[in-house]
Amino acid sequence: MPELRRDPVTGEWVVVASERSRRPSDFAGHSPGHHSDEGETCPFCPGNESLTPPEIMAFRQPGSQRNGPGWWIRVVPNKFPALAIEGDLNKAGFGMYDWMNGVGAHEIIIETPEHDKQLPFLDTRQVEDVLWGYRARYLDLKKDPRLKHILIFRNYGRVAGASLAHPHSQLVATPVVPGQVAAELEGARRYREYRDRCVYCDILRQEADEGVRLVSQNDHFVALEPYAAKYPFETWLLPKRHGASFAAISAEEQTAFAAMLGEVLQRLHFCLDDPPYNYNIHTAPCGDDEKDDFHWHLQIFPRLTIAAGFEMGTGIYINITPPEVAAECLREIDLQAAAPVREETTVGSENPGEQAPTSHP
Amino acid sequence: MPELRRDPVTGEWVVVASERSRRPSDFAGHSPGHHSDEGETCPFCPGNESLTPPEIMAFRQPGSQRNGPGWWIRVVPNKFPALAIEGDLNKAGFGMYDWMNGVGAHEIIIETPEHDKQLPFLDTRQVEDVLWGYRARYLDLKKDPRLKHILIFRNYGRVAGASLAHPHSQLVATPVVPGQVAAELEGARRYREYRDRCVYCDILRQEADEGVRLVSQNDHFVALEPYAAKYPFETWLLPKRHGASFAAISAEEQTAFAAMLGEVLQRLHFCLDDPPYNYNIHTAPCGDDEKDDFHWHLQIFPRLTIAAGFEMGTGIYINITPPEVAAECLREIDLQAAAPVREETTVGSENPGEQAPTSHP
Repeated sequence: MPELRRDPVTGEWVVVASERSRRPSDFAGHSPGHHSDEGETCPFCPGNESLTPPEIMAFRQPGSQRNGPGWWIRVVPNKFPALAIEGDLNKAGFGMYDWMNGVGAHEIIIETPEHDKQLPFLDTRQVEDVLWGYRARYLDLKKDPRLKHILIFRNYGRVAGASLAHPHSQLVATPVVPGQVAAELEGARRYREYRDRCVYCDILRQEADEGVRLVSQNDHFVALEPYAAKYPFETWLLPKRHGASFAAISAEEQTAFAAMLGEVLQRLHFCLDDPPYNYNIHTAPCGDDEKDDFHWHLQIFPRLTIAAGFEMGTGIYINITPPEVAAECLREIDLQAAAPVREETTVGSENPGEQAPTSHP
Repeated sequence: MPELRRDPVTGEWVVVASERSRRPSDFAGHSPGHHSDEGETCPFCPGNESLTPPEIMAFRQPGSQRNGPGWWIRVVPNKFPALAIEGDLNKAGFGMYDWMNGVGAHEIIIETPEHDKQLPFLDTRQVEDVLWGYRARYLDLKKDPRLKHILIFRNYGRVAGASLAHPHSQLVATPVVPGQVAAELEGARRYREYRDRCVYCDILRQEADEGVRLVSQNDHFVALEPYAAKYPFETWLLPKRHGASFAAISAEEQTAFAAMLGEVLQRLHFCLDDPPYNYNIHTAPCGDDEKDDFHWHLQIFPRLTIAAGFEMGTGIYINITPPEVAAECLREIDLQAAAPVREETTVGSENPGEQAPTSHP
């Protein structure tokens, strides 16, 4: 069973995943993430469903069998979970140290049956179904009173921590509100207390006025390079409508979100020659997602530089590409000229929409 | 001139180093830190002193010339500084955003004239002189009222962000107290308020009692794997004597510090087959280093795994090697059997000690 341990100085929680326990020889080579799945059977490809734990839900063609082919989105438990879904949440102290058993959820959202078709090049309706998949899992896990926060994220490329190439996202639900999430929520509350406005709504206003850090926008979403970007080409997607929870999105907004996500990932792809990246959805903790304090959004971090001793010791990042330069580069990409003609996907032809995911709870 | 920009939500500062400004083509290859100095003239080797900016100080043989050979420790400004030493500190607001010009210091401590002799294999007296070099620069920069904190750190290996192989450490002085430093200081104060004891002194006591996370100790220093280690084989060196500032170290303690640092880096070297790592010295901000609140220490982070979307979105790290397992592995290393016989270095034969660095201010 994994454990959660708390730093007695900073209060930060750490997951000690003892099942995955690694001895020194397992780190030989020192090339983090050097494990590649090339040449091995991909557990996420259709026909190999038995290589994953049994599926939690899927969007599938009528008549297809659970844990068999015929799906276009498939959600399974992580085979090597950071946190485990079974058992009660126990807390204890060991002398001065605080401990919790590692209760939580760790799931994989397989985004397409096609092994080589990456997210920016999926049909927009397929991207939309990925997002509906995120939402369905969020709403289901939110019912579990042991879970305080649900993070949805994507690692792309080995340098960004992806160990399997088949397109997938991940979800981790934690029994604590993570420090980073608490810091953003507190920051938004502090700003609201001082100015009686939402900090993210103010960012949207100022960025729309200035324009220099804008990347793109549509009816419902804005993509921009944040003023204090930690990483070169760090990009945020913000919904124009204020709201704490990404799960409260409307069908029309979801379509716009999918279109903007696909577009921005394409711009990054062509601008930076297929960079490794992480993205994660910043949404309020489960207990705060119906309050007014937060403004959910998505952050993309291309992994072009290395955080080293200075960043680790101070928390201050050195960004060698001003966000104004990055925004200009991303805006300049001519997607019509750069992108191959999008094919209609052969699966996913029936959009399950908001109401009709073929879910196996 | 570099700038400091503040995240309007979290309050975190970011350095935007516009001189280093990178366009997309500069990131081609996406192998962070893939630049190697192999085959190029090393600017840190004796005889190449003209390839660095003029030296700030050096420990040198009597009669040798400034910016020429004959040194055994040499400190120079970073040629591509993250922060610049010139100019007044200016602060401004741009709409909702907070800004400062990037005043600070960024120096390189060249640890030995020998290109291929890494820190763990230097003579203990040479390591001691590296530490005296750290201290001399700290005390000099502390006089500058613009500077609020001084971080001393070391990046080893390309994966850990080192772009030059010649053994060196770095120092960055910032005009703000960094968030990570503030969090530790606040944590220590919170603990003291609640329990009227130092949290680090309590850690030392509990770890000495339990023993399972201890790596080594001598008269003045303890090396241990912290209870809530974020990284596999994360190792802390703590002075037994409580004190906020590493600059208040005695000559006897410095000898013990150098011996323990060399020993622990050797244990990591042999246990993990020469891993990349970062270390940094956690010392109180300049304005707090004569108060009683903090307990300075050194943290070593081997870079064996990748922080990915989950860590970036939550601040919660997943550590796949329990610190108890790591401590046992590190204790088991037989340094007598593993290490080559230490040679006396030919330079550095005169220990300048606490009083006598041949400094060029």
